Amino acid sequence: MKAEFINPFLASMLNVLSTMAMMEAKPGKPTMKNNQVACGDVSGIIGMASEQARGTMAITFTEPVILEITKRMLGEELKAIDETVSDMVGEITNMVTGGAKRVLSEKGYSFDMAIPSVISGKNHVIRHKSKAPIVIIPFTSEAGDIFIEVCFEE
Amino acid sequence: MKAEFINPFLASMLNVLSTMAMMEAKPGKPTMKNNQVACGDVSGIIGMASEQARGTMAITFTEPVILEITKRMLGEELKAIDETVSDMVGEITNMVTGGAKRVLSEKGYSFDMAIPSVISGKNHVIRHKSKAPIVIIPFTSEAGDIFIEVCFEE
Repeated sequence: MKAEFINPFLASMLNVLSTMAMMEAKPGKPTMKNNQVACGDVSGIIGMASEQARGTMAITFTEPVILEITKRMLGEELKAIDETVSDMVGEITNMVTGGAKRVLSEKGYSFDMAIPSVISGKNHVIRHKSKAPIVIIPFTSEAGDIFIEVCFEE
Repeated sequence: MKAEFINPFLASMLNVLSTMAMMEAKPGKPTMKNNQVACGDVSGIIGMASEQARGTMAITFTEPVILEITKRMLGEELKAIDETVSDMVGEITNMVTGGAKRVLSEKGYSFDMAIPSVISGKNHVIRHKSKAPIVIIPFTSEAGDIFIEVCFEE
């Protein structure tokens, strides 16, 4: 997978966090995922498809970081991952993908977005079923870690 | 959501189970999902997108039923949900969606498939983030229950 597929997601995530949640996150080095799996408490996942390419993106949060983001975005202090938090993760997933989609379409890669789904459950694991490499972008923030996984097949 | 969006998934699932796993499953009545959530141990999820419509489909299995399906498809008796089982769920997700896609395209609804992802984790919950109704199709088999959730926006 080309680096130009990755950077739009990284930039879009930083932009969403800083504008919507006033949260500064620090991106780590994107790495190829072999057998490791990002493990978290709540994830947003969305499919992307076009005639030329297909892909999937997942954003995984641990409980402390998503509760902090929710507090900053809604001004509500929640104690656990509930439907409000799940809606927030769905919105973030839509916004990050929408931002990346705009940049990618300027580069000539256009695709349509599927409906985002949000998975909750302690220590769930997501595996993308593709022969294409999966790239993980880690983000650290003062409230905890976030992982984006992107997988694209041309 | 129109019934004609649902039946191709139902028929494709029965076909995959009977041809690949020699398993007869009985479909229950499809119902609109309000706030309930299908809850299971392993799920395959795939996005679908085109310029006219976007959607997502999830197939959720409990542990006993997916272990039985794996045994029948591979001849291997596994004790827990591992990567072999996860690959199997990804394959089933691809096959069910591929079958439904063919029928839908004959009806004039064409879409491209995203990459399937498989989620494992005890009692995880999947919520599809759409204003469109979510239809759940339950299946019962001698080894346990399976749920398909389909959500489509035109």
